[in-house]
Amino acid sequence: MAPAALTPESSGTSTPTTTTASKLTEAGIKHASHNSNGQTGDLAPLDASLMTTTLNKNLKTVPEFDGPEAKAQKTMTDHMVSALWTIEHGWAAPELKPYGPLSIMPSASVLHYATECFEGLKLYRGYDGRLRLFRVSRNCARMCRSASRIALPDFDPQELEKMIVALCARDGPRWLPKDRAGCFLYIRPTMIATDSALGVQRPREALLYVILACFPDMSKSLASPAPPAMRGEANGHSKASPGLRLIASSEDTIRAWPGGFGYAKVGANYGPSLVAQGEAKAKGFDQVLWLFGGDDYVTEAGASNFFVVLREQSSGKLQLITAPLEERMILEGVTRASVLELARERLTKTQEGVESVEVVEKRFNMGDLIAAYEEGRFVEAFAAGTAFFVAPVSVIHFRGRDIAVPMDGDSGVYARLIKQWLSNIMYGKQQHEWGVVVEEETE
Amino acid sequence: MAPAALTPESSGTSTPTTTTASKLTEAGIKHASHNSNGQTGDLAPLDASLMTTTLNKNLKTVPEFDGPEAKAQKTMTDHMVSALWTIEHGWAAPELKPYGPLSIMPSASVLHYATECFEGLKLYRGYDGRLRLFRVSRNCARMCRSASRIALPDFDPQELEKMIVALCARDGPRWLPKDRAGCFLYIRPTMIATDSALGVQRPREALLYVILACFPDMSKSLASPAPPAMRGEANGHSKASPGLRLIASSEDTIRAWPGGFGYAKVGANYGPSLVAQGEAKAKGFDQVLWLFGGDDYVTEAGASNFFVVLREQSSGKLQLITAPLEERMILEGVTRASVLELARERLTKTQEGVESVEVVEKRFNMGDLIAAYEEGRFVEAFAAGTAFFVAPVSVIHFRGRDIAVPMDGDSGVYARLIKQWLSNIMYGKQQHEWGVVVEEETE
Repeated sequence: MAPAALTPESSGTSTPTTTTASKLTEAGIKHASHNSNGQTGDLAPLDASLMTTTLNKNLKTVPEFDGPEAKAQKTMTDHMVSALWTIEHGWAAPELKPYGPLSIMPSASVLHYATECFEGLKLYRGYDGRLRLFRVSRNCARMCRSASRIALPDFDPQELEKMIVALCARDGPRWLPKDRAGCFLYIRPTMIATDSALGVQRPREALLYVILACFPDMSKSLASPAPPAMRGEANGHSKASPGLRLIASSEDTIRAWPGGFGYAKVGANYGPSLVAQGEAKAKGFDQVLWLFGGDDYVTEAGASNFFVVLREQSSGKLQLITAPLEERMILEGVTRASVLELARERLTKTQEGVESVEVVEKRFNMGDLIAAYEEGRFVEAFAAGTAFFVAPVSVIHFRGRDIAVPMDGDSGVYARLIKQWLSNIMYGKQQHEWGVVVEEETE
Repeated sequence: MAPAALTPESSGTSTPTTTTASKLTEAGIKHASHNSNGQTGDLAPLDASLMTTTLNKNLKTVPEFDGPEAKAQKTMTDHMVSALWTIEHGWAAPELKPYGPLSIMPSASVLHYATECFEGLKLYRGYDGRLRLFRVSRNCARMCRSASRIALPDFDPQELEKMIVALCARDGPRWLPKDRAGCFLYIRPTMIATDSALGVQRPREALLYVILACFPDMSKSLASPAPPAMRGEANGHSKASPGLRLIASSEDTIRAWPGGFGYAKVGANYGPSLVAQGEAKAKGFDQVLWLFGGDDYVTEAGASNFFVVLREQSSGKLQLITAPLEERMILEGVTRASVLELARERLTKTQEGVESVEVVEKRFNMGDLIAAYEEGRFVEAFAAGTAFFVAPVSVIHFRGRDIAVPMDGDSGVYARLIKQWLSNIMYGKQQHEWGVVVEEETE
């Protein structure tokens, strides 16, 4: 009988042998070898257990939470993790190493063809002293779906999750110390095609990496009134007021389309939205409310999912409504899914001291919102996503008129409730399977 | 009277004074200063006259034309030109320097949000021994339009043209020597947002650069038959045959949409097209024929514009048809414009020994093509763009059936004629205003 390592029967798993693994660990940036069974086309899978570690000897000063460095969004922590993929060898051993610039050829695919995708999530310092991620497996699974939409390589999402955890375990203790309960860092997994061939073609080389950023608390900055000069110019509500102010997109700028890639977190969804976003800000609004089609189907708010609570005309019942995923125009947000799940679990019966709501994923359009507003059936609206968390909406501007969305103080009632529930899970006030504890490096 | 350089009246042009210019030239990568009139907000414009030069001391071996290095599309010439823009200072002095990797922060806008645009054109070595660009001012003007669609900074397109010319003048003589008449290099102007802030926002820093590549002659590779294994699998035409083989896009993948950015040469148009392109190649086709909407409107072929010649049913006259620009879904190709202009000038009356054609920019759909094919009115089809030049199309595969596009040997008659006319201008066989001669550096 042939040696076990050479028989296909005994090498059915993709785990490299110990020998291969240690060789790879030493190799660092170099390509991972073929698996030991030597089968043609059997490329190395992404394997976080092979990760090498090079610690940063020049640690930065950790800035205050939500201070000027966080608002500039340019301060990353001391380390990053990355893994190189090539079409010839598959995934190299991941590296945890000092944060620093990437060396990218001017001809690289990512700089020309937007062969790039990313994720956004947060690392939370709980009130119980522990570090937590929120439903991180969902972000990792979505990263795979995004990558496949732009011809970037596949990987086991659990291995990306391990890379994220390793970085958080390393930099979390110092950058998010125990006296910062209720604070967070922003986590940005990214994949880019580093292939230096200039042709328009499937990339043959890519880099997956994760960085950790000091990020502002956008939900707080929205709750506190913005400078009067930026508020109330475009409508009759001239008082400084909390809540997101949205302006509906114009007919000549559309974010996504059926058959496009609106569902994927790919760079191509963002760059083309920046002009409209800049125009919105110049007019005193916070974000664009993206409409689609001749009937002004309401899709997303900025880079967040969008929810409304309306009282249904016929039944008189409340509905929590957001746009559906089927047409693949809407980002399948982790916060979106969590809002829907919590609302279905806790709001569909009268409890929590509020009127029950029906939870509905369906198309709705500006006409529906205007009718509800005019008939006093518009109860509240909010955006939901990682960056803005659950952000109440106070104004929707649409073709020269305003919808003044009702607020109960600085938020709608349902937005406040859902935000609190989510926050409790993220910061460990409620032990919940969505809150994934990160064991911290102690050295 | 105040010194001339300080009076607004005499500093109305954007040309800096000699003093400023020499200071900037020394400054190299550093930011350009404000103009000498010192007005607030008067940012430095892009100014090629300030260009600094650092020559490469390790010149590469120049590979053969259209050889393996060109096919790999990874070989760039010895130099590149670049200019940095910041929101605080405007454009720094451009630099001509050795080609090499860029240092880009992992958080840079371009790696996450597809804040990137580019151009593609060629440098031709003429049969009269001179180097030429083809209508380069059109590429530079389009680069500005593309940049503005993704919130990248504006510049005077003539200054980009001067940067392109400077690079071609430097590397053209050695990489495209006089004994390579009829050969070309590929020019890739690029702009990327290098802003290291992670927020989804208008970039505050960008890099404009131009590189020169050894590029394969794709029009030749198409004219010669591909390996039989790659041909004729998906249809009844099993013989190896010249001409592009196109497969119509499926309903679940569209390239562009009204209100999107199909007209702009931005990265976001390319990455999301690679999966469909890869699937097309796997099925034995060369490119995707991009359809739009329920009536299968025919838009582009791969990354090229698409033309058909049909005999009109009612009048019996020939029409050269391509998709219109009004809806801003179609790339405003320089080759497209040149095909249309030459056809209008030379083909609308019976001359050149061929039947006259009417030149029409209008929507047409797959139904029109199928009807023309079935009724014997489909005369020819070709793709037109910089990379593939004028490429005859031999097959269009659409939902399980093939349209065998008529060919006259290795091309349709009109494609051959137009290609020859354009080639004559590019390679100096016909002196024409579209052919822009580059004066070569003699040192």
